[in-house]
Amino acid sequence: MSDCIFCRIAAGEIPAELVYEDDLVLGFRDLSPQAPTHVLIIPRKHIATLNDLQPEDEAIVGRLYSAAAQIAAREGLAERGYRTLINCNADGGQTVFHLHLHLLGGRQMNWPPG
Amino acid sequence: MSDCIFCRIAAGEIPAELVYEDDLVLGFRDLSPQAPTHVLIIPRKHIATLNDLQPEDEAIVGRLYSAAAQIAAREGLAERGYRTLINCNADGGQTVFHLHLHLLGGRQMNWPPG
Repeated sequence: MSDCIFCRIAAGEIPAELVYEDDLVLGFRDLSPQAPTHVLIIPRKHIATLNDLQPEDEAIVGRLYSAAAQIAAREGLAERGYRTLINCNADGGQTVFHLHLHLLGGRQMNWPPG
Repeated sequence: MSDCIFCRIAAGEIPAELVYEDDLVLGFRDLSPQAPTHVLIIPRKHIATLNDLQPEDEAIVGRLYSAAAQIAAREGLAERGYRTLINCNADGGQTVFHLHLHLLGGRQMNWPPG
């Protein structure tokens, strides 16, 4: 059994409120939402950080974004807009070391971005 | 001549401080930096927003991220960390309607992300 919480969510061992699922990625709601919509989209493959991306992972990153756009549309955010981000390591604010894309919307996002 | 400022930067018609360039994407420093390192990475292809991504653009999005990781490493940010984001439309804070990835680092990024 993996000790990575996101691998365990992907394996169905830990419950999460899934909003998207395909062969490469899945999306579920963040437990500490920072906006009316706050979804995390993760690859099924365990990739610790952006620094660990391999050239063959480019399709996975592309899929994270096509999933984000689909989820945003379903949540009624496409026209108003939304913010997507991936944090890397401590200065970026990464706390779970399984790559994840944050999708935030439903309010005006501010600048600077944290 | 395009009226898109980022298309004009990609075409070399408007100067920018380039930090990365390949066949699909280029990176240059943001003129209003929000962190010690603040780079914008754009596709050469004009894509207005995340909502306009087509399935065949997944490789472009993947490349934006592999470029971001390479730039972060060159700037000495890989271990300390960094934040990457793409804004979509007004609520996301998008101001130039040519898809761009923000890479920010060199300081602790805060939460919430704007």
